[in-house]
Amino acid sequence: MITSSQNHRVKLVRGLLGRAKERREAGAFVAEGVRLVEEAARANWSMKFVLYDESLSERGMQTVKLLTSLGVETEQVTAQVMDSLSDTETAQGILAVLAFSELPYSPAADFILIPDQVRDPGNLGTLLRSADAAGASLVLIPPGTTDPFSPKVVRAGMGAHFRLPLRSMTWDEIRQFRTTPASGRILLADMQGASCWETDLRQPLTLIIGGEAEGASPQARALASQSICIPMAGGSESLNAAVAGSVLMFEIMRQRKGK
Amino acid sequence: MITSSQNHRVKLVRGLLGRAKERREAGAFVAEGVRLVEEAARANWSMKFVLYDESLSERGMQTVKLLTSLGVETEQVTAQVMDSLSDTETAQGILAVLAFSELPYSPAADFILIPDQVRDPGNLGTLLRSADAAGASLVLIPPGTTDPFSPKVVRAGMGAHFRLPLRSMTWDEIRQFRTTPASGRILLADMQGASCWETDLRQPLTLIIGGEAEGASPQARALASQSICIPMAGGSESLNAAVAGSVLMFEIMRQRKGK
Repeated sequence: MITSSQNHRVKLVRGLLGRAKERREAGAFVAEGVRLVEEAARANWSMKFVLYDESLSERGMQTVKLLTSLGVETEQVTAQVMDSLSDTETAQGILAVLAFSELPYSPAADFILIPDQVRDPGNLGTLLRSADAAGASLVLIPPGTTDPFSPKVVRAGMGAHFRLPLRSMTWDEIRQFRTTPASGRILLADMQGASCWETDLRQPLTLIIGGEAEGASPQARALASQSICIPMAGGSESLNAAVAGSVLMFEIMRQRKGK
Repeated sequence: MITSSQNHRVKLVRGLLGRAKERREAGAFVAEGVRLVEEAARANWSMKFVLYDESLSERGMQTVKLLTSLGVETEQVTAQVMDSLSDTETAQGILAVLAFSELPYSPAADFILIPDQVRDPGNLGTLLRSADAAGASLVLIPPGTTDPFSPKVVRAGMGAHFRLPLRSMTWDEIRQFRTTPASGRILLADMQGASCWETDLRQPLTLIIGGEAEGASPQARALASQSICIPMAGGSESLNAAVAGSVLMFEIMRQRKGK
């Protein structure tokens, strides 16, 4: 049982819950809570270790046992140590330290999402969760978007991180990446664009969603070949960035299903 | 200039930023930030008073001048007093205390939203913002959903509060309200429902969206005549509640526009 907040694993977790730089240097990130650890286990995600405390539920203990039997190092910590670590108000008594690892994507990826200048971790996580549910094939994270492996993004992503390929790229890399023949159009979500209901979204495409505060970057605007919007009623001027992205992604799914 | 945090107006604002009970008793709520105060002014919303500090932008000062000329009491406070009040990390140096006031709704309201057991203020505010943008006619707030006039909900609503009629009701009242002839079907968003793309949503309807943690209440389930879902790809099991509600509301709008 780990009782000291100066234990090297505890210190590592504290670092990983903090800045992106710490995560990059350690090549790892943290998933908190029973459900996320279960999702990581189900996805066979490479785990460095798991910490839990006495408050862990029966269901959570089952996961700990399963992971131990699979060779993952699991260690109990005191409730105090866990409290000092948890990023949430309603800690669930378990967290896993996961290795950075890139899910493969198909070279024929025909539905790519670029969340651009999305600074709010909750919004980015929600976008990833929706992208996963709407059948996106790949997400490219440009500079200026918040770190997709921060605890809040991972939590709001609800397991999307373990199913949906993500790549962090510079705009130059994105431009290069996107010159493959099959990559299709690049669409920018924009108030001034054509109605998404009157745009054919069935062919391969990349969708850029700008952040709430500043919208899309000049680089994103330069890259996009076309803009689309969600028509709106009344006096409202915009939608939450995660909502706008989600509505557009499910419209893509609807059209591709021929509904 | 108000310099004391014991000033009666400052104390009132502090109360209104806190519990729902304080807002009910005072019959008032708070809108923070230049944009929200502008939206309230544009909607001709009844204002009790406005507080601002020296950090207020030029644009914000124009609004203060306009409101003063319209007879609203505006008072400068010290930056310290404002800091002690603001609920946000990035205060914008202005807040308005607004009277509770019920926007009228059409008796022919044909698109009613019921956010049920939505506990997260950000999610409720985002749902209101989307409902406004998707042309909903009325929102009914049942018991168990977070107070729509808390500062976080008002902020996430981005002005929806000033355009979209809201009513807090018990389930008995909702049942009664909904027995008017023109009120149409009651649809519950539910994973087990029929695809929203294969359900005709053009006729009058009420849409119930359950909260993230517990879903919809037994009362909501008893009231609903039909369930609809958003089809999902891959291993994902659910969407963020605000996202699910928004995708469904824009699907209603799409169908009604004949797209």
